[in-house]
Amino acid sequence: MSDLLVLSGKKVSSVVYQGLSDRIQTLKEKNIIPGLAVILVGENPASKVYVLSKTRTFKKLDLFTKTYRLSSDISQDELLHLITELNNNPSYHGILVQLPLPKHIESDKVINVIDPKKDVDGFHPENAGLLAIGRPRFIPCTPKGIMKILGHYEIGLNGKHVVVVGRSNIVGRPISILTSMKMDGANATTTLCHSRTPDIENHTRSADVVIVALGVTGFLDHSMIKEGAIVIDVGINRIDADNDKGYELVGDVDWSSIEKKASAATPVPGGVGPMTIAMLVENTVEAAEKL
Amino acid sequence: MSDLLVLSGKKVSSVVYQGLSDRIQTLKEKNIIPGLAVILVGENPASKVYVLSKTRTFKKLDLFTKTYRLSSDISQDELLHLITELNNNPSYHGILVQLPLPKHIESDKVINVIDPKKDVDGFHPENAGLLAIGRPRFIPCTPKGIMKILGHYEIGLNGKHVVVVGRSNIVGRPISILTSMKMDGANATTTLCHSRTPDIENHTRSADVVIVALGVTGFLDHSMIKEGAIVIDVGINRIDADNDKGYELVGDVDWSSIEKKASAATPVPGGVGPMTIAMLVENTVEAAEKL
Repeated sequence: MSDLLVLSGKKVSSVVYQGLSDRIQTLKEKNIIPGLAVILVGENPASKVYVLSKTRTFKKLDLFTKTYRLSSDISQDELLHLITELNNNPSYHGILVQLPLPKHIESDKVINVIDPKKDVDGFHPENAGLLAIGRPRFIPCTPKGIMKILGHYEIGLNGKHVVVVGRSNIVGRPISILTSMKMDGANATTTLCHSRTPDIENHTRSADVVIVALGVTGFLDHSMIKEGAIVIDVGINRIDADNDKGYELVGDVDWSSIEKKASAATPVPGGVGPMTIAMLVENTVEAAEKL
Repeated sequence: MSDLLVLSGKKVSSVVYQGLSDRIQTLKEKNIIPGLAVILVGENPASKVYVLSKTRTFKKLDLFTKTYRLSSDISQDELLHLITELNNNPSYHGILVQLPLPKHIESDKVINVIDPKKDVDGFHPENAGLLAIGRPRFIPCTPKGIMKILGHYEIGLNGKHVVVVGRSNIVGRPISILTSMKMDGANATTTLCHSRTPDIENHTRSADVVIVALGVTGFLDHSMIKEGAIVIDVGINRIDADNDKGYELVGDVDWSSIEKKASAATPVPGGVGPMTIAMLVENTVEAAEKL
């Protein structure tokens, strides 16, 4: 087996940012600064980290962003009311509600109230539907980022068998739709596996491309893939570690196990993660352009 | 191999109508008569037959229906204007635009303008999206009918491998989503094959359930399924025949080839077809109930 090709989301994301800088410049010349409103409810430590790295990127690019930090006991009505205000605020082209929300708030209702044209996460039913019927507006950031990585490394999916593990609305479901769409770079035959699949390894073993989005540390090992498979690791799992942070991030793929068998794979960190943020910026720029 | 179980959509649809009659009665006691507006543009002979059999069913059940027959040279604006009127007309709980539309009209724009709460075909992006994220409102009639047939014959999909052939927005895509949803009766591992799949037979041969929605007469034969497979034939193809009509309807499955190998299958006619109309009635009744 030849050496594993490391699919670096970090590298691809910097190419994306380069491409975006012209578009951002053009907007600025029209006095439009792409703006993102971020809503963070409560004190979930992972959510705080995610929000921070998103807003930091926006600031680094001289884009406008503001984080609305709300107490975990905010009422659903207050939250809906804030979103309605942000919908009507022309400084924001994108609105992002960091999930998960506290249990007393229905996430569905919250997402429903976001203006679909500002829904840069692509979670609103209208945007999920436009994707499902093959006319995407905002594609959820992680699946979109995966397609960008594959595109950058010229890995076309036409005629390939893709097996997706995990059926979340955020990653598994939309990437299964995207990969199998009638579209350049897509056109794969896609199988969607999940917690109720009795023999996941039988499916992954026949796949040309395996996309794992399960949130289970080290789930995929060499026995579950075929020689030369392409592996996309969407997992971002925190495990305790003896470092400053007290934790480190690992994926759903056992890298040391697959690295001699796979032909290409995304690492964690530095794989899909950086692309998610880059796609959030891209979607926000797109939203501003469409204004 | 034991005898093939014929999955009779005709029989299941009559059970559905029985179940609906109580619901229709309850609505009538509240002076609500479920109403469907059907828009038929042009003179496509197949479309005329479909519209006729839909409206005939509504009339037989003493429901309200009216068909708007429009000339094929109607402008898109006129059509959109009519739909807006029907959206605001309280006599109609459902609005159906028979597809295909003439080439000068953009189907997407037409479907977009239907009030999603009257979109009993389930084609509006919002309804497609609600299905994709696992909170369906109106499920497209043919996929919904397929699930009903399987449910009636107590064929649970949990743990089964379903292979769908065809990725249309009307059947293939939504049934691939439905079968793999986190839901009683669903929870299948689903593979979506299509025109760009190089080795469809390798996929169908490993399937517990094969759903063919390709529109190619006799596409699926015994060499493409495993012993005991369940076969759902969504094809409705017209072939010339020496009878009064001058044609007969045949499916995508070569019935004589698979009948000794499959364990169960839907016939054409009398399989998925009657269920599609039954689900249109069910969706319209649901729309009236939700009013």
